[in-house]
Amino acid sequence: MLNQKLFKIEKEDSYTKHTRLIKEYKASHPEADIISLGIGDVSFPVPLPVIEAMKKACDELGSMDTFQGYGAYWGIESLRRAIAENDYKGLDISSEEIYVGDGTKTDCTALLELFDAGAKVLTGNPTYPVYRNGAFAMGRDVYECSCDEEFKMTIPMEHYDVIYICSPCNPVGNAYTKSELKKWIDYANAEGAYIVFDNVYRDFAQSLGLPKSIYEIEGSRTCCIELHSFSKNLSFSGTRCSYFVLPKEFGEELHSLWRERTINRFNGASYVAQKGAEASYLPEVQEIIKKNIEVYKGNGKLLRNTLLEAGFSVTGGIDAPYLWVGTKDRMECWEAFSFFLEKLNIVTVPGAIFGSKGRYSLRISALGTRENTEEACRRILEFYEKDN
Amino acid sequence: MLNQKLFKIEKEDSYTKHTRLIKEYKASHPEADIISLGIGDVSFPVPLPVIEAMKKACDELGSMDTFQGYGAYWGIESLRRAIAENDYKGLDISSEEIYVGDGTKTDCTALLELFDAGAKVLTGNPTYPVYRNGAFAMGRDVYECSCDEEFKMTIPMEHYDVIYICSPCNPVGNAYTKSELKKWIDYANAEGAYIVFDNVYRDFAQSLGLPKSIYEIEGSRTCCIELHSFSKNLSFSGTRCSYFVLPKEFGEELHSLWRERTINRFNGASYVAQKGAEASYLPEVQEIIKKNIEVYKGNGKLLRNTLLEAGFSVTGGIDAPYLWVGTKDRMECWEAFSFFLEKLNIVTVPGAIFGSKGRYSLRISALGTRENTEEACRRILEFYEKDN
Repeated sequence: MLNQKLFKIEKEDSYTKHTRLIKEYKASHPEADIISLGIGDVSFPVPLPVIEAMKKACDELGSMDTFQGYGAYWGIESLRRAIAENDYKGLDISSEEIYVGDGTKTDCTALLELFDAGAKVLTGNPTYPVYRNGAFAMGRDVYECSCDEEFKMTIPMEHYDVIYICSPCNPVGNAYTKSELKKWIDYANAEGAYIVFDNVYRDFAQSLGLPKSIYEIEGSRTCCIELHSFSKNLSFSGTRCSYFVLPKEFGEELHSLWRERTINRFNGASYVAQKGAEASYLPEVQEIIKKNIEVYKGNGKLLRNTLLEAGFSVTGGIDAPYLWVGTKDRMECWEAFSFFLEKLNIVTVPGAIFGSKGRYSLRISALGTRENTEEACRRILEFYEKDN
Repeated sequence: MLNQKLFKIEKEDSYTKHTRLIKEYKASHPEADIISLGIGDVSFPVPLPVIEAMKKACDELGSMDTFQGYGAYWGIESLRRAIAENDYKGLDISSEEIYVGDGTKTDCTALLELFDAGAKVLTGNPTYPVYRNGAFAMGRDVYECSCDEEFKMTIPMEHYDVIYICSPCNPVGNAYTKSELKKWIDYANAEGAYIVFDNVYRDFAQSLGLPKSIYEIEGSRTCCIELHSFSKNLSFSGTRCSYFVLPKEFGEELHSLWRERTINRFNGASYVAQKGAEASYLPEVQEIIKKNIEVYKGNGKLLRNTLLEAGFSVTGGIDAPYLWVGTKDRMECWEAFSFFLEKLNIVTVPGAIFGSKGRYSLRISALGTRENTEEACRRILEFYEKDN
């Protein structure tokens, strides 16, 4: 009677194993100066004007004149309006099309409740493991899409119902261009499929030809659900706030179904987090975000150049805060992970966590501090120069 | 390809219709002094020491020395420990058995991800509609249990896999005794079934023979998952924090499956909310909670006596903050709701929202302010004395 698909969640190639190995190494090497370029947590704190807004929200909860209770199932109106007006300026998205959540990890698979249990879910390999494992947890079957040499998914010949695209991409660190996405949109519209477009790393996409939103692309409004989160730009990884867009072109019946679903499954993101997210649109916060993203992007560039110089094959690090690094001499990824941890005291993520095609790769994060990133680069260069 | 079970969520007898009717009435009667005894939101603000703890948590997020990011998928250790030590004092529940969530609404149906899509889910009629509708959203089949004249579910002859019991009960306002629960526990253990025991209204249960926790009852640890929330005692209806207990007797494999599920589906409740919840165990906060619960319980008593005096049949209002009120002359519940709204300017909830067996009942909440509750009672008595 247990959900048998839960057993499909890979335990050997999992974050659980990863966390355990790091913990064990730290315990047995308490003197080691370990730099984490592993799990994609942030290095800047929550911006102070956002903290102030959150504390003000706390105070509001302390008086019945300003108290906030039940009712904001898909987000408080002022936040949804701020998102529509700022993130979708000129793109004709209204607050009615915005659904606020407690994080893209929850949202991206919760959306599967819109679709029948038999819906065919497609994701890449490598991919953000939550798409696959979250879908398993929800009892769905997940299919693997072929990818090209840049690890971008190639349009399938068969029919699928729900397609996960993460761009800018976790884990491989590159981004789909508008013209590449247009082909997926055409496929989805032809097949009556839906694209769950995970745009969490939007702020990192600055190269020519990359969209800031999928809704810049013709045909997207009938088939694309775009997700975004405040985890990276506001450092809300522990505070929890996110949103996604269901365009009105999906039809009133679908919106109505989703609203009824949500009323029965979720009481909304924390009011305090939502008021913090709303403050992200203050000009002074936008300035802080811009500067932080520049640091992360600088880290990416530094890591990319260093790893290339050290003789690795590298994808990403330019338009996303991740680098996808091929191991040398086809070293197996868990071995390479241990090698980096033990020889360089640098935490990376074994590629196999993201799928079988990651077996000879590591994911390296550019979300560390500049100082740690520079030190990591120094260690890498020193080691591999000595090695060469 | 849409989830067909979403269409089973009743729209005619729904909170959506309820909210719309109230809004329409208020718009057309702006002068009306309306008292809400409807949706179970609270009347006391978040206690000030809790607000202070939350603001301190906000400040912690503003510095990398104290920053909290990813990782507390099932709750921060200090909160889980506080729950185990306080709420389960003497009951031998450890922090490892506690899973923190963002609300019982989410938790109670998210737990279905543990079980196969074919698991037979049993709930009462009337029942908290989320058990039924949330299970539909998750693609599950839901079965209706017969209830006795007190609206308590009677042990079925057939096999079911997951049984929802809400006690103290929303909506009918009474509570299951230890000996009644023991029968359900025996059924579950004999059938290999699980009981999802929604104990959100625990603090209201003060009559003899009622448990504070299901784990006081023999046999419960192999089959019962107990849920609790901070929404009512801390007024966290907008702040969002909850927890449930999976006893270690469920086995390490099941815990391991649930942890992997959670890592892939949820990044934890907001850190700020969790630190607020932790502060609920401060002695000064316990005092505030106790006083607030006493007010609500006093409201329940007042409403109960008033409604009985006005000639209604009443269940509940003693060990739960709800009263289940039979309409007079078998007036249909939506009509009775409109009658209360228009004649008395009191908002109630039509019983049909909780199931077809609620067609001739109203749910009335004792969670209003004392002042509003007294005024509502005055209006009821005045009207029905005039009427008689």
